[in-house]
Amino acid sequence: MNRIDGRQENQIRETRITTGFQSFAEGSALIEMGNTKVICSATIEERVPPWMRGQSRGWVTAEYSMLPRSTLTRITRESVTGRVKGRHQEIQRLIGRALRPVVDREALGERMVVVDCDVLQADGGTRTAAITGAYVALYQAFHRLVKNGALKRLPLRDSVAAISVGIVDGELLLDLCYEEDFRADADFNIAMNGSGHMIEIQASAEGDPFNPEMVPEAISLAHHGIKSLLQIQREVTEAIRTQ
Amino acid sequence: MNRIDGRQENQIRETRITTGFQSFAEGSALIEMGNTKVICSATIEERVPPWMRGQSRGWVTAEYSMLPRSTLTRITRESVTGRVKGRHQEIQRLIGRALRPVVDREALGERMVVVDCDVLQADGGTRTAAITGAYVALYQAFHRLVKNGALKRLPLRDSVAAISVGIVDGELLLDLCYEEDFRADADFNIAMNGSGHMIEIQASAEGDPFNPEMVPEAISLAHHGIKSLLQIQREVTEAIRTQ
Amino acid sequence: MNRIDGRQENQIRETRITTGFQSFAEGSALIEMGNTKVICSATIEERVPPWMRGQSRGWVTAEYSMLPRSTLTRITRESVTGRVKGRHQEIQRLIGRALRPVVDREALGERMVVVDCDVLQADGGTRTAAITGAYVALYQAFHRLVKNGALKRLPLRDSVAAISVGIVDGELLLDLCYEEDFRADADFNIAMNGSGHMIEIQASAEGDPFNPEMVPEAISLAHHGIKSLLQIQREVTEAIRTQ
Amino acid sequence: MNRIDGRQENQIRETRITTGFQSFAEGSALIEMGNTKVICSATIEERVPPWMRGQSRGWVTAEYSMLPRSTLTRITRESVTGRVKGRHQEIQRLIGRALRPVVDREALGERMVVVDCDVLQADGGTRTAAITGAYVALYQAFHRLVKNGALKRLPLRDSVAAISVGIVDGELLLDLCYEEDFRADADFNIAMNGSGHMIEIQASAEGDPFNPEMVPEAISLAHHGIKSLLQIQREVTEAIRTQ
Amino acid sequence: MNRIDGRQENQIRETRITTGFQSFAEGSALIEMGNTKVICSATIEERVPPWMRGQSRGWVTAEYSMLPRSTLTRITRESVTGRVKGRHQEIQRLIGRALRPVVDREALGERMVVVDCDVLQADGGTRTAAITGAYVALYQAFHRLVKNGALKRLPLRDSVAAISVGIVDGELLLDLCYEEDFRADADFNIAMNGSGHMIEIQASAEGDPFNPEMVPEAISLAHHGIKSLLQIQREVTEAIRTQ
Amino acid sequence: MNRIDGRQENQIRETRITTGFQSFAEGSALIEMGNTKVICSATIEERVPPWMRGQSRGWVTAEYSMLPRSTLTRITRESVTGRVKGRHQEIQRLIGRALRPVVDREALGERMVVVDCDVLQADGGTRTAAITGAYVALYQAFHRLVKNGALKRLPLRDSVAAISVGIVDGELLLDLCYEEDFRADADFNIAMNGSGHMIEIQASAEGDPFNPEMVPEAISLAHHGIKSLLQIQREVTEAIRTQ
Repeated sequence: MNRIDGRQENQIRETRITTGFQSFAEGSALIEMGNTKVICSATIEERVPPWMRGQSRGWVTAEYSMLPRSTLTRITRESVTGRVKGRHQEIQRLIGRALRPVVDREALGERMVVVDCDVLQADGGTRTAAITGAYVALYQAFHRLVKNGALKRLPLRDSVAAISVGIVDGELLLDLCYEEDFRADADFNIAMNGSGHMIEIQASAEGDPFNPEMVPEAISLAHHGIKSLLQIQREVTEAIRTQ
Repeated sequence: MNRIDGRQENQIRETRITTGFQSFAEGSALIEMGNTKVICSATIEERVPPWMRGQSRGWVTAEYSMLPRSTLTRITRESVTGRVKGRHQEIQRLIGRALRPVVDREALGERMVVVDCDVLQADGGTRTAAITGAYVALYQAFHRLVKNGALKRLPLRDSVAAISVGIVDGELLLDLCYEEDFRADADFNIAMNGSGHMIEIQASAEGDPFNPEMVPEAISLAHHGIKSLLQIQREVTEAIRTQ
Repeated sequence: MNRIDGRQENQIRETRITTGFQSFAEGSALIEMGNTKVICSATIEERVPPWMRGQSRGWVTAEYSMLPRSTLTRITRESVTGRVKGRHQEIQRLIGRALRPVVDREALGERMVVVDCDVLQADGGTRTAAITGAYVALYQAFHRLVKNGALKRLPLRDSVAAISVGIVDGELLLDLCYEEDFRADADFNIAMNGSGHMIEIQASAEGDPFNPEMVPEAISLAHHGIKSLLQIQREVTEAIRTQ
Repeated sequence: MNRIDGRQENQIRETRITTGFQSFAEGSALIEMGNTKVICSATIEERVPPWMRGQSRGWVTAEYSMLPRSTLTRITRESVTGRVKGRHQEIQRLIGRALRPVVDREALGERMVVVDCDVLQADGGTRTAAITGAYVALYQAFHRLVKNGALKRLPLRDSVAAISVGIVDGELLLDLCYEEDFRADADFNIAMNGSGHMIEIQASAEGDPFNPEMVPEAISLAHHGIKSLLQIQREVTEAIRTQ
Repeated sequence: MNRIDGRQENQIRETRITTGFQSFAEGSALIEMGNTKVICSATIEERVPPWMRGQSRGWVTAEYSMLPRSTLTRITRESVTGRVKGRHQEIQRLIGRALRPVVDREALGERMVVVDCDVLQADGGTRTAAITGAYVALYQAFHRLVKNGALKRLPLRDSVAAISVGIVDGELLLDLCYEEDFRADADFNIAMNGSGHMIEIQASAEGDPFNPEMVPEAISLAHHGIKSLLQIQREVTEAIRTQ
Repeated sequence: MNRIDGRQENQIRETRITTGFQSFAEGSALIEMGNTKVICSATIEERVPPWMRGQSRGWVTAEYSMLPRSTLTRITRESVTGRVKGRHQEIQRLIGRALRPVVDREALGERMVVVDCDVLQADGGTRTAAITGAYVALYQAFHRLVKNGALKRLPLRDSVAAISVGIVDGELLLDLCYEEDFRADADFNIAMNGSGHMIEIQASAEGDPFNPEMVPEAISLAHHGIKSLLQIQREVTEAIRTQ
């Protein structure tokens, strides 16, 4: 199958993670995967939500939004409609769930991390890019806590990265761009930790329901892509560590 | 492993679907799975959303909410906070995605079905119960369209049912009740059509990330439970058909 | 005058109150009057609103809403519009006012009771049915406080029930169903305590203004119906008391 | 019984209605009853709400609000909280119900009147004062329609005025000021048309439930006060008519 | 140039400030400039916003709104739309900025003054009239604090008044009414303290951009008008002082 | 006076405008002035607001917001609070006012331009930077309309740029960074067109009221800075024109 941008079926888009894009944030990363660009920042707050107080553990939460012209057609601001879209709610809950299992919440102590993921440009795969970038922002923020002496070690149990896989004309394709996503019968979003264990899998048949046997194949293809992303993360976090 | 309610690992809770609970609705079903009770209604509207006009196809959407005392602790009404909770947004999007692939939207014509799922009592698995019940409400509403002569045949391509599977202490359990769900490391929500094809899979490791090899096992366990639910649906829809 | 359901002018619809419908609530009652069905739950909170603190007295408040398909035409959810309808605000204020005079707020202590009234099916008289059912939910919740030893006796000064009366074609009819209500020139909602004293009267001439002399007649007719409702309440609360 | 402002039990407060207070409105009246001051304006719109289109009849609706310092303690603006208070919703629905029966909606044609009642100063009885003042604003706006030739005659079937009655220490008092209202066991709001027929009665026992026999007495006392208000209205509308 | 109401170019409209219009407020002033009428009240609260606590200084803030029929066409209430209009936000921020520099916030202590400016009738210049009137309400409220012994002296560093200037057909006009404002190419709002120093200047070219040399001329013309307003304020505050 | 970043009093920060940052927008510019970074996009819509229909003229409007971590302390999203902040409303109204006078709205025809200004990083002067950047985004969007043949020529009457001036310790400083702004007694925001005429001036004395004679000096200093910005704009728009 010929992909519209000439990629192999198991090939991810050109990916770059730039740290420190928003220099006032404790952690900041701009992730670019092809034309998709998401800016992630991590904020450390010295408090937890009321329902978590007194448990000597931290919390990680995420917020996701899109700039009005991240897309071909302008999106009305959520501040104007007065409510966060259902799609964005769903995505930010996904990002939070993907980050929490790699954080050592006991080691973090009673602190809350808010990860903001704002899409500057959307060409498919923004939610998975957001997870991959958010991990780097989180790392940088935690690194600062260690450097400041607030923590003895990074409160991380592992890393996490995510990618999409689609079923297009019966074939599995890795890391869909918007046009491929639009044509897909089903679309997987998969997040794994650095050891290749599953953190999240979500797949929907928007077109034809698919054979359960495709699920392990899709996971395997995602794993292939996630390994590349984990490698890019390692390079970037290594640079943070040795600054 | 001993389950708190004495069930086998692959055993679903006692399930009952009662039709016509809300007699003013075009389709109505009360689904009870153990202590979980969800009231589903289907409304047929002779219009589609603006962005779908002129495509000669229908649309199916869902709304999900919980009565204030469906739970042990009272939940503040969303009408009071002025916004639909993120969790509920996520669930109602899931229900809509699960229903659309089994509807023949061309055969439905330019009509919209709104499926309302209101939880009367919540003891785990409300979102999957909602999908299973919603299919029956949908069936009844479509049956009425056929009886009224508005449609020649049921605009359905297949049926759909859904169930949860959890990983508790490393073991897979079918159809978690709230207490099991609370202790689970990971939790799957799986929807399949009547032919055993996948419509939706969503799994999150809230505790420990899990081995990808557990995914096909979880699907297989879910399939086992879904087969029972499809059978219950068949009995209920048969009764509707032959009224 | 022939009523559409063959009742006498002074006859209430078949009425049934079922307790414990929502088993997680401190108090719960489903009231059915003909096709009107309202689910009432009572929640005890160990706090009062800020403006009542330190007065050694409790508070009772109510919330009223309708499920989307409680009516012939689907109602948009208030969580979607982001505000409680004026009609619902008016009704929930009425329910709260009707309940407070029968509660011994000093005996209750600094506790708040929230009574939720959710209409499952609406065929006229939902607000008065809600009051009648809410009293039973309240009773059950208070009974639990006594059983738990939190209170020495039921903090109740009396019982309360309510019913509607309408002027249709110049004649007074008891307990209007929706179709009668629609045709009425004026419509009374009357709540009385167990001793036949007035707690609330509200009447509006939507059509022709009416002679003041009809007011005592309407009250008298309402009293007749309320006596039957009080009797049904007594049977149900007796069953709670002697469980 | 000695009233705090020395009035007789059946005596209303000094009342003045000034027309044309807001000169840009089609109809405008400032009503002062003792220290209570309400500014009423009537706006004629050449359309009806969507659900009334094509019925060749008009509609009358009301909005009620209070300026932040109409009361001893500043009230937060509803524009800041983002929602109309339940109490205000209830009152504006009452005002609308009280005005509609005196308007000849067929004669009005497909027009909507919005009556705005804004409380400048609140010392009890603002809702009944609003009804009495709103009638004058309505009259002036209708008079303008006749003068402009848009209508042949005033689309009015009668006039309407309203007043409160309270039960204080077992005695009925007419036209309560705030301090009396605060001490009342029950409080009636009664609206009558120019012929002494009932348009609205609403009474609540905030303290002790009261004997049904007090209702006709309260109506009779209200009638006495309403007659004075109707006389004041007649003088003011006569001045409008003969300008 | 002939002005539509026959005024000289440097002549303000007939201006009157009435104190005590809302007698429950700590400070209250109704300002009328021609047909523009704004009711201003000042509320003293014994607290400051959270972000100012512990600084031993007070705060002054303003809210601005318009009654629905202050204008020729009815304005929808902000309580109905659920949000404060951008224009009103801008104006209330301006009023707060204009008042704060004349208040001795250290002398005021940890208190907050909320100044409410509600437009009863709008014929141009409502924001500048609001500033001029608000100063009087503020003075009266502070005077009460001194009279009650809460403060030793008025916490005021100076007075403040404001006026508009417009460029109409290339000429500068003082104190525009609505019709002049509508035709103006640019429009200045200028606030000065009692010593003729600048507190706020805001000018926009809605039509043609203007020569920077017109700015000092506009300031000078505004100063001329402000001097008259300061004189009216002095008379009114003198009356308050010597009551 | 020594500025904290070593600049001369009349020296602007290092400024760079990058076009095409958001490649899906009709016009897009990232403006960086020192550490302040604002992303501006221009969207052309083939419609005007309802109140402008049929006038054969276009409209230009702006929206302004800040990313949560554009600042040292995280800002809560306006989508979460459900309302646009007063400060942001004020700024976006300013940006719209500054752009409209340089657009030839007749030549634009019945089209609306929405300019989105989102602050990525805030170090003072974001509103003036937004105006300067927005002009470039507007230019690019208009250039596209001409290239597509939708318009014969650029619908622009002139260019516009803006800058801040502050009074710090009695001295005028050009283009304040956040720390200077924080210490300023008064702060001017000035927008001029390419011919040096005034489009907007807004100045507030947050600290001490200032002498009116400082206004022409501030304008003159702003003009000096604006000339540099206009030059940068010319280079960038020339590059767009000759692409």
